[in-house]
Amino acid sequence: MEPQPTAVERLLSIRESIDNIDAALVHLLAERFKFTQTVGYLKADAGMPPSDPDREVQQIKRLRTIAAESHLDPDFTEKFLNFIVAEVIQHHVRIASGDDPTGPISTSGLSDSAASDSAASDSGARDSDGSPE
Amino acid sequence: MEPQPTAVERLLSIRESIDNIDAALVHLLAERFKFTQTVGYLKADAGMPPSDPDREVQQIKRLRTIAAESHLDPDFTEKFLNFIVAEVIQHHVRIASGDDPTGPISTSGLSDSAASDSAASDSGARDSDGSPE
Repeated sequence: MEPQPTAVERLLSIRESIDNIDAALVHLLAERFKFTQTVGYLKADAGMPPSDPDREVQQIKRLRTIAAESHLDPDFTEKFLNFIVAEVIQHHVRIASGDDPTGPISTSGLSDSAASDSAASDSGARDSDGSPE
Repeated sequence: MEPQPTAVERLLSIRESIDNIDAALVHLLAERFKFTQTVGYLKADAGMPPSDPDREVQQIKRLRTIAAESHLDPDFTEKFLNFIVAEVIQHHVRIASGDDPTGPISTSGLSDSAASDSAASDSGARDSDGSPE
């Protein structure tokens, strides 16, 4: 019979899982900021308003439902979305003030032609973003 | 030739991607809180201190590296980890004060026997947690 893991062994194993989850979270957040960056420039190019209160209400409602189904605190989930959106807004302000080292993604002609997916992929999301999403 | 999507169509498509990412984020966060809850009770049972400053230093360093590789702002990533850890601590305080409606997960015997995975799965992470991880 195999010996059972000690508390320390069990702790180290769970920490590996937490580390895997954290890496996945960071990668997903990186993708999310790439998308919001694209949205920001897309809206600016098309003359759409940067914020959309109805969209945010829908997002909060949807995420609270998903949270409840996943046994995650819906209030925390709403705080989490607000935390992310606050960062998106900060990026937006930086772009508006011209302090966007990566420069805008070209979305010209988006109204009548498809934006290439590579436009978003080639531009780092680190220092630029668009609008609350 | 297919007509190219308009700016609005492109925006709606990106929003679908953002919504998918947000759902994944919420599910991962739910899993993370389940693990930290288990860690909290595991440590309490084994008499290990709830916090581990060395562990947190390692986590920050590792996540900043992953963030840089993913073109996500490392400072934002550190803020994000602090945001999550703050919530974990809050849950911990609630447990310590006895305000933990879901009750502790049994981890008795963990020092010399494996904890069943279902112990964590059966308990919602909504209102209880363990220690900073």
